[in-house]
Amino acid sequence: MKIKVNEHFFEIKETYLFSTIAKKVAAYSKENPDKKLIKLGIGDVTRPLAATVINAMQKAVEEMGRAETFRGYAPEPGYDFIREAVAGYYKNFGVSLSAGEVFVGDGAKSDIGNLPDILGDNPILIPDPVYPVYVDSNCMLGRKISYLYANRENGFLPMPDDTLTGEGYVIYLCSPNNPTGAVYSHAQLKEWVDFALKTGSLIVFDCAYEAFINGDYPHSIYEIEGAKSCAVEIGSFSKMAGFTGTRCGWSVYPDELAVNGKKLSSMWSRRQSTKFNGVPYIVQRGAEAALTKEGLRESHENIEYYMGNARLIAELMREKGIYFTGGVSSPYIWLECPNGMKSWDFFDFLLEKVQVVGTPGEGFGVGGEGYFRLSSFGSREATEEAIRRMKTVL
Amino acid sequence: MKIKVNEHFFEIKETYLFSTIAKKVAAYSKENPDKKLIKLGIGDVTRPLAATVINAMQKAVEEMGRAETFRGYAPEPGYDFIREAVAGYYKNFGVSLSAGEVFVGDGAKSDIGNLPDILGDNPILIPDPVYPVYVDSNCMLGRKISYLYANRENGFLPMPDDTLTGEGYVIYLCSPNNPTGAVYSHAQLKEWVDFALKTGSLIVFDCAYEAFINGDYPHSIYEIEGAKSCAVEIGSFSKMAGFTGTRCGWSVYPDELAVNGKKLSSMWSRRQSTKFNGVPYIVQRGAEAALTKEGLRESHENIEYYMGNARLIAELMREKGIYFTGGVSSPYIWLECPNGMKSWDFFDFLLEKVQVVGTPGEGFGVGGEGYFRLSSFGSREATEEAIRRMKTVL
Repeated sequence: MKIKVNEHFFEIKETYLFSTIAKKVAAYSKENPDKKLIKLGIGDVTRPLAATVINAMQKAVEEMGRAETFRGYAPEPGYDFIREAVAGYYKNFGVSLSAGEVFVGDGAKSDIGNLPDILGDNPILIPDPVYPVYVDSNCMLGRKISYLYANRENGFLPMPDDTLTGEGYVIYLCSPNNPTGAVYSHAQLKEWVDFALKTGSLIVFDCAYEAFINGDYPHSIYEIEGAKSCAVEIGSFSKMAGFTGTRCGWSVYPDELAVNGKKLSSMWSRRQSTKFNGVPYIVQRGAEAALTKEGLRESHENIEYYMGNARLIAELMREKGIYFTGGVSSPYIWLECPNGMKSWDFFDFLLEKVQVVGTPGEGFGVGGEGYFRLSSFGSREATEEAIRRMKTVL
Repeated sequence: MKIKVNEHFFEIKETYLFSTIAKKVAAYSKENPDKKLIKLGIGDVTRPLAATVINAMQKAVEEMGRAETFRGYAPEPGYDFIREAVAGYYKNFGVSLSAGEVFVGDGAKSDIGNLPDILGDNPILIPDPVYPVYVDSNCMLGRKISYLYANRENGFLPMPDDTLTGEGYVIYLCSPNNPTGAVYSHAQLKEWVDFALKTGSLIVFDCAYEAFINGDYPHSIYEIEGAKSCAVEIGSFSKMAGFTGTRCGWSVYPDELAVNGKKLSSMWSRRQSTKFNGVPYIVQRGAEAALTKEGLRESHENIEYYMGNARLIAELMREKGIYFTGGVSSPYIWLECPNGMKSWDFFDFLLEKVQVVGTPGEGFGVGGEGYFRLSSFGSREATEEAIRRMKTVL
């Protein structure tokens, strides 16, 4: 064919980080079918969905089987019941939203990945290391990215500094952070919001891990004054309610968020009504149930379970004298590879020596080189086994 | 804020066609709360999901509630079971695909809307009138579109002609067509495939309505020799199995489909693994069930039911001497507005006089002006009532 393809795709790694890892793991499994792998790599939950959620979805499935209760196309931003439920959830953080500012989608990955569709060519600020989607989605459009390096010196919490002399930036922040587990304080987020307001910039705030927060840290950027005028926030049911295989999340586009009087919410609405047909009804009912008092209680039990795993992994790190962050307000442990090993070498080492799969820090950016991410979403038994195995080689 | 937004959004209509209609209808309902509307506008199904599908989804929901059977992240292109089921479905058309060429997504709207992400700036050929997503998704990227006008003279089936002197086009075809219901023959599709091969062009073939075909027409572009080298095909469970509110579809990227040795499938795979996290497990099991012998039989019953509606609408048209296409291999009736009325005037006329909602042809493109689309997805009772009402004013 003589058509042109999007050549920016050739400027990014051939495959998405977790696809690369999956391929290596599959190859290893094939060569070593008898070796049982323990996967503490991809941040995938393992606990089943809450009973409240299951019941709600069973009911919704049954409704879809009867003419009187069958539902066809949903409104693209979600049914009122789920938009209101999300807006209601924000009251827990002292944040007041109208349901119309909430756009329910099939998960943070999609909402983050597709957000650049509505933006022009702006200077982009992205932390490094960080969740690869922020970078890849902007590279695919040929956007110019500058990195906010996270490291031991700044506690993996980059702050605005005076090298940032421009205006109209698009700034990605994720707190609690994936992959480092570091979490911004109110004061630090206020610094970012003030910077954004001063420079006319947009903050894209990823709060996917807010349910793991321990301590007085902001769950939502909108807890910071002025944020409604400069930030879009993206949340997710994936880690909070175990929806990685069920798919639901939301984007908040406050009414105040506008460029030259044009509300960003109307642009996102236009994008979604053109390229998306809504979240399945069954899933929307499940998500609604996840936000009820009982649903949140059941999710919290699972989060506590995972954080129990995190504490055990953290203990191992302390025992071995390995530097790490995370594991307190985050299900991720971000550790410095022992013996100055490079990330992918440590990945291979753990895989080949003790059949434990983690995620090499370099996969999250050059700032991640020499670091490694372990996730605490496995079962307690698998986590304990992984720790036993790692003890022998660390 | 001082960020730049995507200004191409200002070059398209403020809201998506069906959003505009929904707004007008909501406004009318508010003014006239006592008037019962009959909606033959948006192509939304009304029959409940097949029992086979419901059972499969109930089972899947139950699995998600137990640790031993719980599923987290799906592979982005879909589980093997659904990719294989779709590849198996194609055998019905005499088309042989490998599961790896099938990419399951959350519906044709998303797959079509997001496809331009992987392409460069090519000359685009789009029929007019047609499903608005083809146009809007390309306009959002500032792509240059030329229209293939469908009209009475060409039976609403535009063909390549000698005004098309370029190469490397991206050509959108939809057959059976939305909104006109016209359907290409094997010979006609062969002409398009030959044209694409000769000019190094890519055909984007939308087969969302193939399950409605009556007669010897191609269900898949791949029934045409050579198509695997020049066409991507997008299918959907929405109309075939009633999944408008359940969300599942597929894109076929044949291995042969490449540009300078680079497979388009690898680019789509990269796009999806970056910006999409898969279809919910529950929905994938429902879709798998829809493709079993029993599932297909149950879907066929529903299709027959809808086509019964279509026949009644067609009868009314004939009775009133109104020119129309569709209704034979398509759930849509595409009619010429009576008395030379313009599309939106006829929309208002039907809404205000007899509270019947249809879709104005002009919403599908300038070539649709003076035409109107009625859909046969309503209940038999609603359809009969709508016909009774329309009889009084046509």
